Amino acid sequence: MRKGITMKKLILDLDTGVDDALAISYALGSPEVELIGITGTYGNVLVEQGVRNALAVTDLLGHPEVKVYQGLPHSSATDRFEVLPVSAFIHGENGIGDVSIPDSDRSVETESAVDFIIDAVKTYGRDLVYVPTGPMTNIAAALGKAPEIKDEIGEIVLMGGALTVPGNVNAWTEANISQDPDAADHLFRSGAPVTMIGLDVTLQTLLTYKETRQWRDLGTKAGTFLADMTDYYIKAYETTAPHLGGCGLHDPLAVGVAVDPTLVTTLDINMKVDVDGPTRGRTIGDENRLNDAVKTMKVAVGVDVPRFLNEFMTRISGLAGSAE
Amino acid sequence: MRKGITMKKLILDLDTGVDDALAISYALGSPEVELIGITGTYGNVLVEQGVRNALAVTDLLGHPEVKVYQGLPHSSATDRFEVLPVSAFIHGENGIGDVSIPDSDRSVETESAVDFIIDAVKTYGRDLVYVPTGPMTNIAAALGKAPEIKDEIGEIVLMGGALTVPGNVNAWTEANISQDPDAADHLFRSGAPVTMIGLDVTLQTLLTYKETRQWRDLGTKAGTFLADMTDYYIKAYETTAPHLGGCGLHDPLAVGVAVDPTLVTTLDINMKVDVDGPTRGRTIGDENRLNDAVKTMKVAVGVDVPRFLNEFMTRISGLAGSAE
Repeated sequence: MRKGITMKKLILDLDTGVDDALAISYALGSPEVELIGITGTYGNVLVEQGVRNALAVTDLLGHPEVKVYQGLPHSSATDRFEVLPVSAFIHGENGIGDVSIPDSDRSVETESAVDFIIDAVKTYGRDLVYVPTGPMTNIAAALGKAPEIKDEIGEIVLMGGALTVPGNVNAWTEANISQDPDAADHLFRSGAPVTMIGLDVTLQTLLTYKETRQWRDLGTKAGTFLADMTDYYIKAYETTAPHLGGCGLHDPLAVGVAVDPTLVTTLDINMKVDVDGPTRGRTIGDENRLNDAVKTMKVAVGVDVPRFLNEFMTRISGLAGSAE
Repeated sequence: MRKGITMKKLILDLDTGVDDALAISYALGSPEVELIGITGTYGNVLVEQGVRNALAVTDLLGHPEVKVYQGLPHSSATDRFEVLPVSAFIHGENGIGDVSIPDSDRSVETESAVDFIIDAVKTYGRDLVYVPTGPMTNIAAALGKAPEIKDEIGEIVLMGGALTVPGNVNAWTEANISQDPDAADHLFRSGAPVTMIGLDVTLQTLLTYKETRQWRDLGTKAGTFLADMTDYYIKAYETTAPHLGGCGLHDPLAVGVAVDPTLVTTLDINMKVDVDGPTRGRTIGDENRLNDAVKTMKVAVGVDVPRFLNEFMTRISGLAGSAE
């Protein structure tokens, strides 16, 4: 960092998950940002499991200073949340590719995720970038409790949605948005500065066994863990999306853009989420704000794939090589 | 035109309709292009009525040299076509805002629209721009009969679809595509060089009574006709889309882009049309060709509204002022 430039503060909101763990790795391997906390959500796993994974993974990566805050366990439209069989198939029963790593000695913080998000906005303001890579339940609750944070936060870079390509839950809905369409719609219409990193771009950034072998060859616990976990994920993709020839780097790309927005080209647009009707969960431009001069969101429609993959490997290999 | 530069040849494929008549006016008011023919399709009106309107409108605008070819009367998936009540509401029972103008003395050509399209590609090749502003039935039939024209034609600039905004028939389908989703899908996947001018941009280019008054003030028959016809259309928009504050210049924008592609910003993308399932008729990126290096289509996602409106008014007022 150059003197006099404030370092960006990052909060990752994760349902830790394989690509969530890779997102943590990318953030910790990025000297431009400080990961000030992880807030837990549900999706790939139950919120309790995700929080446990986040604590264990940050320990393993040599960063036990990263605090973890537990978020809401389900959407406001539901009474409870159960992990979908397809999520367990893709991420493993334990969320991290059924690889065993030691539980952390640390506990989750007593402050709730929602309160931590609000406090962090009040403390860091424009320097704060919040990166949700699961359902938007926590940030929607934070906006409900303290609506003014929409004007105070630096940016929200989310992984979720699909504007120019079909969804991955069905033809029109992406998985993160599908968990809580109402929360995502609340966020999209709030006026907060949001960049959407959806399937439009994350299905272009693919990882293969060739790259995970580089991690294994590091000979460190961290490298072996990342390789084993990600191989499980790549193997699942061979079944769920064989045409891709690799696994999508969904959550890490959102972190990559939080660190360096020039990795993607974006469209300025006012977005909404369909909450009624047969296309519930679809992310689409809001026809009622089409001609508004101010556009509050950016949707990534293009990505510099080679540059991102190079950053991804450099940062994560650097971290995993030096971690242990 | 500068010496030595070949003039673009234009075919308009129209279901003449109010904004189709404006598209004819824009083309005839553009010295950069030569309108070599109009092919008729169904949609806003029956194909027979559309052809009759095209003949009458070109006569009224002082261009009886423009030949008109009759196209297919309905989609291949249907046995017949009936005008939807909403189409009659928007365009009038006669398609041109229920304004009476004299029928042409001329007849439709004996050559079919499909054969004329194929012949024109063979004659003009890369200099030919084909602009369909109704269903894609005629061009799909031409591609079925002579598949090689996909590599020989200059460009296809179509009005239809909606990528980043909802549809206007329902939340996911635009009217032109809804008439024949299979034909549009055939075109989109054909590899032909297609630019899609959808609701994404055409609902940004709005006309109001202020502009139509300028045509009426010209004091010509053509100016009065255009003003009366378009006022009918604007009035219908006050009912169907009151939030817009004007009528969408759908078909003229496609012609505008055919004349000057720099009016819009586009996204390079391989597109498809959903032909099965509940979202039949939706235009969306093809996930199976997401990572193909070659992108065969461009979708307009931004438009220079003031510049287009200025071109629109300059060209059409110039034509209508000198026509009669």
